[in-house]
Amino acid sequence: AVGGAYSMPTFSSDGSKVVSRGAGLSKASVAQKNTFTVDCSKAGTNMLMVGVHGPKTPCEEVYVKHMGNRMYNVTYTVKEQGDYILIVKWGDEHVPGSPFHVTVP
Amino acid sequence: AVGGAYSMPTFSSDGSKVVSRGAGLSKASVAQKNTFTVDCSKAGTNMLMVGVHGPKTPCEEVYVKHMGNRMYNVTYTVKEQGDYILIVKWGDEHVPGSPFHVTVP
Repeated sequence: AVGGAYSMPTFSSDGSKVVSRGAGLSKASVAQKNTFTVDCSKAGTNMLMVGVHGPKTPCEEVYVKHMGNRMYNVTYTVKEQGDYILIVKWGDEHVPGSPFHVTVP
Repeated sequence: AVGGAYSMPTFSSDGSKVVSRGAGLSKASVAQKNTFTVDCSKAGTNMLMVGVHGPKTPCEEVYVKHMGNRMYNVTYTVKEQGDYILIVKWGDEHVPGSPFHVTVP
């Protein structure tokens, strides 16, 4: 490793085995906590990455909580109405269904 | 778009213009809030993605808060000591310095 660079650990994972569930994958409300769960327990070892973007601005808050055994609760809040894009990745791989299309009526 | 698939919006961004700062990029403590900031204000439009993984288990919690103007505060908590990997991406691009190597003494 040169100049502080850090080699990536080799994760062995399969994003296709991830299962996401919850209303927050398709619909969200302004100024409320919108949630979904992501079960990576059968998907090997990796990192959960979540990104949300609205029609104009980024999502206000994204909170990812590991519940143990690679099962996660995700909570996010939005400030504006419109069509959002929600990306859920297990490492570099989109999980099934991602990118999700979230409507904020 | 077929079968509910959602086409990705085209984000125009440059991850090399992102600036990350803070102690949480290099060192963290068990059961405390570890923080850093990410300034994407000069990096175009995209989504901030953050992932943290420890020697054995995923990070306990990751909280990403948009402060406005594409500046973010990131807080995370860890449960075990050891060497962590912290990934910060602006969309699909690693920001400068990512992957970060975080020590939890």
